[in-house]
Amino acid sequence: MKNLLVAQSGGPSVAINATLAGVVEKAMTNQNVGKIYGAKNGIMGILTDKLIDLTEALADPETLQLLCQTPSSALGSCRMKLSDWEESTFEYDKILGIFRKYDIGYFVYIGGNDSMDTVHKLAGFCERMHVDDVKIIGAPKTIDNDLMETDHCPGFGSAAKYVAATMSEIACDCNVYAQPSITIVEIMGRDAGWLTASSALGRLNGDSAPDLIYLCERPFLVDRFLEDVREKMAQKHSIVIAVSEGLRNEEGDYVTDSLQNRAADAFGHKILAGAARYLEEILRFEIGCKVRSIELNVMQRCASHVASASDIYESRLIGAAAADYAISGGTGKMACIRRTSEQPYRFGIDFVDIGQIANHVKTVPDTWINEAGNDVTEEMLTYLLPLIQGELPCTYKNGVPVHLHLY
Amino acid sequence: MKNLLVAQSGGPSVAINATLAGVVEKAMTNQNVGKIYGAKNGIMGILTDKLIDLTEALADPETLQLLCQTPSSALGSCRMKLSDWEESTFEYDKILGIFRKYDIGYFVYIGGNDSMDTVHKLAGFCERMHVDDVKIIGAPKTIDNDLMETDHCPGFGSAAKYVAATMSEIACDCNVYAQPSITIVEIMGRDAGWLTASSALGRLNGDSAPDLIYLCERPFLVDRFLEDVREKMAQKHSIVIAVSEGLRNEEGDYVTDSLQNRAADAFGHKILAGAARYLEEILRFEIGCKVRSIELNVMQRCASHVASASDIYESRLIGAAAADYAISGGTGKMACIRRTSEQPYRFGIDFVDIGQIANHVKTVPDTWINEAGNDVTEEMLTYLLPLIQGELPCTYKNGVPVHLHLY
Repeated sequence: MKNLLVAQSGGPSVAINATLAGVVEKAMTNQNVGKIYGAKNGIMGILTDKLIDLTEALADPETLQLLCQTPSSALGSCRMKLSDWEESTFEYDKILGIFRKYDIGYFVYIGGNDSMDTVHKLAGFCERMHVDDVKIIGAPKTIDNDLMETDHCPGFGSAAKYVAATMSEIACDCNVYAQPSITIVEIMGRDAGWLTASSALGRLNGDSAPDLIYLCERPFLVDRFLEDVREKMAQKHSIVIAVSEGLRNEEGDYVTDSLQNRAADAFGHKILAGAARYLEEILRFEIGCKVRSIELNVMQRCASHVASASDIYESRLIGAAAADYAISGGTGKMACIRRTSEQPYRFGIDFVDIGQIANHVKTVPDTWINEAGNDVTEEMLTYLLPLIQGELPCTYKNGVPVHLHLY
Repeated sequence: MKNLLVAQSGGPSVAINATLAGVVEKAMTNQNVGKIYGAKNGIMGILTDKLIDLTEALADPETLQLLCQTPSSALGSCRMKLSDWEESTFEYDKILGIFRKYDIGYFVYIGGNDSMDTVHKLAGFCERMHVDDVKIIGAPKTIDNDLMETDHCPGFGSAAKYVAATMSEIACDCNVYAQPSITIVEIMGRDAGWLTASSALGRLNGDSAPDLIYLCERPFLVDRFLEDVREKMAQKHSIVIAVSEGLRNEEGDYVTDSLQNRAADAFGHKILAGAARYLEEILRFEIGCKVRSIELNVMQRCASHVASASDIYESRLIGAAAADYAISGGTGKMACIRRTSEQPYRFGIDFVDIGQIANHVKTVPDTWINEAGNDVTEEMLTYLLPLIQGELPCTYKNGVPVHLHLY
């Protein structure tokens, strides 16, 4: 009998704790697993011997349920890449030392691209050193939805639901005055526009926003943008524009770079103005009407009170599947969601070599963006729709959501 | 039998449509009321003869329910003050003409401070001109909670609940990394800090944010602020700070003015940087750790999916009471909420002369801010707590909330 270790890494999401819950419930009910440990702050907590015994802490279903409605990483997170073991085995020896100390036989690492790099390197090192009594499995998580192989990433559906719901509410808010106005909403995603695309779901029930959508996959041309805006403003007095934070120009530079360089002269150091603020300045100057920019900011990755039921469900299942796979002897893989049917939506979980995933980015297919580059296509909506379905009961106390604190 | 006219004005909120629903359901069930009209875009819609017949459109309870979960002003809004009738009766004659045309006997205007100014002037004009067959009543609404006489304002409770819930989620989000970090959350309120104060409710269930709270009622001293931040950072690695958008220095100038003036040199026109962005710049320079600023922006006034049940309930009742009062012959008053008991929380509705309300601002009492000026007191929490109680079922379709569109 061996113990299981689980850790979380990368940017927070609403669903990463559901995956943790899945790992724990699977390990808890398996006779081959002894204790369940969680590392604080991902791989950093392993390197510094900061392990928490979760076997007692997460023993009852009610606590697991509360964990599932807690946003962000209950175990803490880190942004850390391991050095290459070909160059130095220092970190790897330390990690293996901790694995031995706690008799770890199974390690599940929940995270995004950098975390899968860690799984890749660690599994590679174990293979090379003929360490075959530690099984290492990755469980995907990222609101950016940019991991390869998996149909979509746990955490994305809830972020998409937040973006869609908020967009439908912003549509109501922006429409109230008779005066011309433009609202720009900046959505997370530096390299992939999946989350920005999900703003289109805000229109499904007849709300009017967004009117224009710009993803970071297409070069952003200011002149083209101004043309689009003028055309829309000729049709209606108030428009809403959704943009990826990672908009780049034809040269591949972030559009915000020019603003930051200009601002640097005045402030002595760069002002971190986002894409929406940049476009706000341009529109105020070029169009001249009332312009407002909104950053959905961290709320899109932590608004657990409006989580997607299907996302939380899948995230929990994928955690359970990852633990199960490791306990059954699998290693060096990531759990992936396969869409097996579109109507009705069905999915399965399988496991893919981590080497095919780590350090790659899955961007939006060009054919899912309309020709004008200012909206998404029906295929995109069909893809997104199942991921935001369902609402979960959220436990409130004192009028405020309740969260679980593990430490 | 006379007809009733209702209109909405000022900034949107989550509860202003519940008040509209209250007005409509009261008028609908009163034998003395004929048709129910809504004016588009507040007083502007009356001046331009843009009235909608609501008698059919809002006849069934299900539609009224949907109206209550629709954020912003379903009838549209305006930001318009009537000129003084002593100087020109042009607008007033036009309004009375519309009242005659549609046989309006009762006019309920739902809004904030500017809207109560309109009620004040219009009722004054009618009195002066001996027009006694039109009764004019104001129904309060503002997320700023800064109207005089009323214990609190419809719309504020839902905004406060959004701020509290979001703060509790941001607390989870900001705590994940082991690195030092500061998060500044900017909350609406240029002249009154009520909504910023409600961020303190985010701590009620053990979440750690906010660590510091600065309301616009106290002069903001940068040196004192830096001292506070350094002291907190010595205790914990990650802190969250809540600030009113309307922070002012000792001279009474907005703290953002200096930033805007500096930025104006670079851009040729003012950059509308908020208080949080301003403080972000200062902290990055003075403290040097990771700093993030978050504006809750329009979401705090339109996130109806997380509305406060008690706010929506009271808002609907106050609409009904306002209509009832007008139909019974009352005029020139605003409906006010009276807190009649603290434990258990109970309230009543009465009517106050509009002259005592229009153009005054109710700020946070100094004794409800702590001595150091960086948090609120227990009295504030006691006041706020009943206003955010309860959650409402929200109707979703396609995974997105459903809203009612009246035009």
